[in-house]
Amino acid sequence: MVGIAVLGAGRIGKIHAASVAANPKAKLIAVADPFPEAVEPLAQSLGTEAMNDCMEAIARPDVDAVVIGTPTDTHVGFLLKAVELGKAVLCEKPIDLDMAKSESAAAEIERVGGRVMLAFNRRFDSTFAEMRRAIDAGRIGDVRQVIISSRDPGLAPPSYIKTSGGIFRDMTIHDLDMARWMLGEEPVLVSAVGARLIDPTLKQYEDYDTAMVLLQTESGRQAHINNCREAVYGYDQRVEVLGATGMLTHDNLRPTTMRVTTAETTDAREPLLNFFLERYAQAYRSEMDAFIDALADDKPMPTTVRDGVLALRLAECAVESVRTGRAVAV
Amino acid sequence: MVGIAVLGAGRIGKIHAASVAANPKAKLIAVADPFPEAVEPLAQSLGTEAMNDCMEAIARPDVDAVVIGTPTDTHVGFLLKAVELGKAVLCEKPIDLDMAKSESAAAEIERVGGRVMLAFNRRFDSTFAEMRRAIDAGRIGDVRQVIISSRDPGLAPPSYIKTSGGIFRDMTIHDLDMARWMLGEEPVLVSAVGARLIDPTLKQYEDYDTAMVLLQTESGRQAHINNCREAVYGYDQRVEVLGATGMLTHDNLRPTTMRVTTAETTDAREPLLNFFLERYAQAYRSEMDAFIDALADDKPMPTTVRDGVLALRLAECAVESVRTGRAVAV
Amino acid sequence: MVGIAVLGAGRIGKIHAASVAANPKAKLIAVADPFPEAVEPLAQSLGTEAMNDCMEAIARPDVDAVVIGTPTDTHVGFLLKAVELGKAVLCEKPIDLDMAKSESAAAEIERVGGRVMLAFNRRFDSTFAEMRRAIDAGRIGDVRQVIISSRDPGLAPPSYIKTSGGIFRDMTIHDLDMARWMLGEEPVLVSAVGARLIDPTLKQYEDYDTAMVLLQTESGRQAHINNCREAVYGYDQRVEVLGATGMLTHDNLRPTTMRVTTAETTDAREPLLNFFLERYAQAYRSEMDAFIDALADDKPMPTTVRDGVLALRLAECAVESVRTGRAVAV
Amino acid sequence: MVGIAVLGAGRIGKIHAASVAANPKAKLIAVADPFPEAVEPLAQSLGTEAMNDCMEAIARPDVDAVVIGTPTDTHVGFLLKAVELGKAVLCEKPIDLDMAKSESAAAEIERVGGRVMLAFNRRFDSTFAEMRRAIDAGRIGDVRQVIISSRDPGLAPPSYIKTSGGIFRDMTIHDLDMARWMLGEEPVLVSAVGARLIDPTLKQYEDYDTAMVLLQTESGRQAHINNCREAVYGYDQRVEVLGATGMLTHDNLRPTTMRVTTAETTDAREPLLNFFLERYAQAYRSEMDAFIDALADDKPMPTTVRDGVLALRLAECAVESVRTGRAVAV
Repeated sequence: MVGIAVLGAGRIGKIHAASVAANPKAKLIAVADPFPEAVEPLAQSLGTEAMNDCMEAIARPDVDAVVIGTPTDTHVGFLLKAVELGKAVLCEKPIDLDMAKSESAAAEIERVGGRVMLAFNRRFDSTFAEMRRAIDAGRIGDVRQVIISSRDPGLAPPSYIKTSGGIFRDMTIHDLDMARWMLGEEPVLVSAVGARLIDPTLKQYEDYDTAMVLLQTESGRQAHINNCREAVYGYDQRVEVLGATGMLTHDNLRPTTMRVTTAETTDAREPLLNFFLERYAQAYRSEMDAFIDALADDKPMPTTVRDGVLALRLAECAVESVRTGRAVAV
Repeated sequence: MVGIAVLGAGRIGKIHAASVAANPKAKLIAVADPFPEAVEPLAQSLGTEAMNDCMEAIARPDVDAVVIGTPTDTHVGFLLKAVELGKAVLCEKPIDLDMAKSESAAAEIERVGGRVMLAFNRRFDSTFAEMRRAIDAGRIGDVRQVIISSRDPGLAPPSYIKTSGGIFRDMTIHDLDMARWMLGEEPVLVSAVGARLIDPTLKQYEDYDTAMVLLQTESGRQAHINNCREAVYGYDQRVEVLGATGMLTHDNLRPTTMRVTTAETTDAREPLLNFFLERYAQAYRSEMDAFIDALADDKPMPTTVRDGVLALRLAECAVESVRTGRAVAV
Repeated sequence: MVGIAVLGAGRIGKIHAASVAANPKAKLIAVADPFPEAVEPLAQSLGTEAMNDCMEAIARPDVDAVVIGTPTDTHVGFLLKAVELGKAVLCEKPIDLDMAKSESAAAEIERVGGRVMLAFNRRFDSTFAEMRRAIDAGRIGDVRQVIISSRDPGLAPPSYIKTSGGIFRDMTIHDLDMARWMLGEEPVLVSAVGARLIDPTLKQYEDYDTAMVLLQTESGRQAHINNCREAVYGYDQRVEVLGATGMLTHDNLRPTTMRVTTAETTDAREPLLNFFLERYAQAYRSEMDAFIDALADDKPMPTTVRDGVLALRLAECAVESVRTGRAVAV
Repeated sequence: MVGIAVLGAGRIGKIHAASVAANPKAKLIAVADPFPEAVEPLAQSLGTEAMNDCMEAIARPDVDAVVIGTPTDTHVGFLLKAVELGKAVLCEKPIDLDMAKSESAAAEIERVGGRVMLAFNRRFDSTFAEMRRAIDAGRIGDVRQVIISSRDPGLAPPSYIKTSGGIFRDMTIHDLDMARWMLGEEPVLVSAVGARLIDPTLKQYEDYDTAMVLLQTESGRQAHINNCREAVYGYDQRVEVLGATGMLTHDNLRPTTMRVTTAETTDAREPLLNFFLERYAQAYRSEMDAFIDALADDKPMPTTVRDGVLALRLAECAVESVRTGRAVAV
């Protein structure tokens, strides 16, 4: 039985806490958040202890592992403390918005052999995981091109955008990890373009709402990512992989599989699941199960801080590419 | 070069005449129709001769084969005359609305070894033909169940309905032939229900606008047909075949393959091709090519008057089943 | 908080017990089953009490409602006892395999105003429920035809078949309920055919492995059901509804939405979810939630014993139709 | 009646000649090709005159318009001669592989007001044309992103590759035209990457077999193109358009719409139509009809040499981008 504390009682903390509580191999020791009004109802509903000091929660002797779901700028502090105390960690992305700080945290964790999993939830989506397995099983031969379409249902509020680190570090970063994972090789070249087609005021943050990226690996495998902060039909999440002997694609998810046919249109499906909490509900559960399994069976972490650093570096390259108009070498 | 005369310059005659004209192995000798205002423009547009007497056209020495696309009650007369004169025939369905007359015409044709193909156009649709080939190739094992959905885009005018012979002889008959073809065995039992959900006045003709049929063969293979005279989304034509090791299905046809996604619905396709002339345009051409190939290469006719008689007999059984509330033995 | 006891610790009892345990408005008071080796591990895993006497469980004062998931021949006994004691009941189908016994149990329950929900799980499938809502919302106009394809992934073992009551009472009955629900009117006429295409030895039980049914309501609405005990591609569950102004269809469910394209085939999906426990996992949870909501909010039961009686009567008519070759009036 | 001569009796010349012959508003005056063994059978099969001197064919007084389907390096010569003689022209792409020569030819044609249509056949595909109409009709709002996947079924022979001008000028150029058309604005920035994942010997021609391109317009609309010279599943031709209020996608085309379901996979479709002659059969016919309609009704040409120059310029930018690692301003 793995004793786990969840830090952060916000949207993502709630999901992680519920996943821990539902996993028979783990015990949810506590949920911790400085805001009593957030953490207390959560603790109560899950029959666990509420704490207000995250550092204290990390230090508890009955806590074997912590899940970090607090604001981004607190990640590194909790991460290093937990590793120092020999606790395993499942940490939300990104490690930090600052590349240097992320890199040095990762180096420190690797130096001491810290057991840290970075929460790239999409890798645990059953469809994407099946695609990766199909590639590994040789069903489409060597990968040649990866095409990723990833669009949010609607523009986030200015308050969120302002502190998000920008579209490439905040949104594209998930797709950059997916691209790395599906390519099976590290990109060495990044080109990107950014535009403001929805909200021109993003200019004040040097941010964009619409973006496209090209990646190429040493051997020549290519990936494309297209992002838009607003897709009126829902949270669009698609990955296509072209290989030497085949191709993998998949459908988006809807609430049901109903199709409506009328005099105007035929076989119309419902809008997509609205956003990541619904779209990746299964992935969040499976991610937690994979973390707990890795701990329970003493297996390697399925994703690492290194993955986080590499994805962030690609995001930095994309930012630089837009700024300089050059393909940036990673 | 096969010399062909097309009898009838109506909707279906025009299609057949154009198919003959486009086939490099055939020569369109003439089109014949008692109405000069119909036959003359047709002949002119195809660069062939217009005639007003169908019997004369049949008798021409340069005519090797005739295509009968005239009103149903004239079929048997032209058919027997052509066969008597040793001409091959492609005849529109049905042979006749009267079972006895159809049966005796078929018997006579078979007695003298007449070369007659009955125009079951759907068998020449590329998708249905590919399904039949897939069955023959053993891709789904022994056939178990056939499900046929066949719905017209809109109710025909009363004038048409009155002389149509009723839904089972006029509409279901195509599906009964498809069922026979896909089952690969003759049905021995027919059950049917009929309803008037669209036009209650059909009662005066003892006709129905909505119908369902069950068929079973000696070995127990089953087929279901559902018909409706009105489907607002277009001409719905679907066949599904369940076998011991697999299943065949297919999509309906639309004008294009576009899919529209909006805030309300996703992946919506266009309405179906409106009616049989559009839906089976390829099938009509392939049907004529198959007829001409059979003549040019002296091969057996792909469909025969016997097929016409057997489909009509199943239609008669369906009528009787609705009337008596019994499953009727064929 | 509704206190609930689950009777039966078999496959379906486990699912119901877990659903009760997960519902925040209910408390799982006990699970009861005469076999200690079945009920004890279940009780332990859910943190509840194990009992061996179902009647005792029903009688407990802290039990407000019971869920009957025991063998079919025990249903009526527990049902009537629970109702007598004023307990609400969620009872698995069928009430009983015997029509008369089912009818008299239903009559008694209705006489005393017992609160009993019959577990027609498919009505709680999110897709089918959405289809029903779409009909109610007028999206396809008046219903004209319902087409139901329902095929098991593989033949059940002889031991199961022998006591199942036959394909119509055991398998078709779910589809008969679905047909009633989607038609929105009671069928008044039933025609059916049955065949043994997979296992000829079913003859000894006068049973069939392949069947088709036609239903018609007073106003002329029609439904078709096709059943097969073996579909190699998985548990096939499809419902199509044709209305005056549109049509509803839907897709089957697969483990993921991946599509594989190779030189041989394109866009190939995975086999269907194997069987009802996987296919209807969400429906079982929603069914229990609906039961508990009805109790908590004192609302009418979403399904009743009357639904069970009516579906069974249609199954009886189908059996009679196969035997007599007649369309049977309900 | 428009008198037309078709220059070139190769693969594409045959298609154009047949399209002219089938169009009731045009008369196929002659087909011309220096190779008698190519042009004579073609002329015979279409009942027209065979010529061996293309310039002579252009000059015939009964020739109102010429269709240029000869080798690329002869295009400009015939084009300018025809325009000089006041003949309308439908010219195959590209005008010329050399940018300067293309530009000067276009300038000359525009100077004298020559009526020249450049054969961007894909614009006449019924699906792509319907997508463009849907955009014009406002069904998806302002265009934001265009995603084009365009992959050949197999690597062309070295002899073809050597003189092709390279993947960007030979293959991507069609997609660049499509991107311009769907974007509705001119791209001002081009980034591209190229790789040799199939045939490393392409290095000798500084050519690539796998490529990706990004385009951005002044207002920030973006397009992505991915190309691969080999897709084992057939000729993959997909265009997706994301707009402010919706998205357009479409399906690839197969020989039939059959779907095969077995124990291994469900709903598998057939491989795609193999290559452009099959995939764009309808588009070639519609292209010719549009050309003839423009002549017959004295309407503007649906595509112009300017379109050819602009697409070629984007291809040049892509080549430069790969070479320099810069986003190239158009």
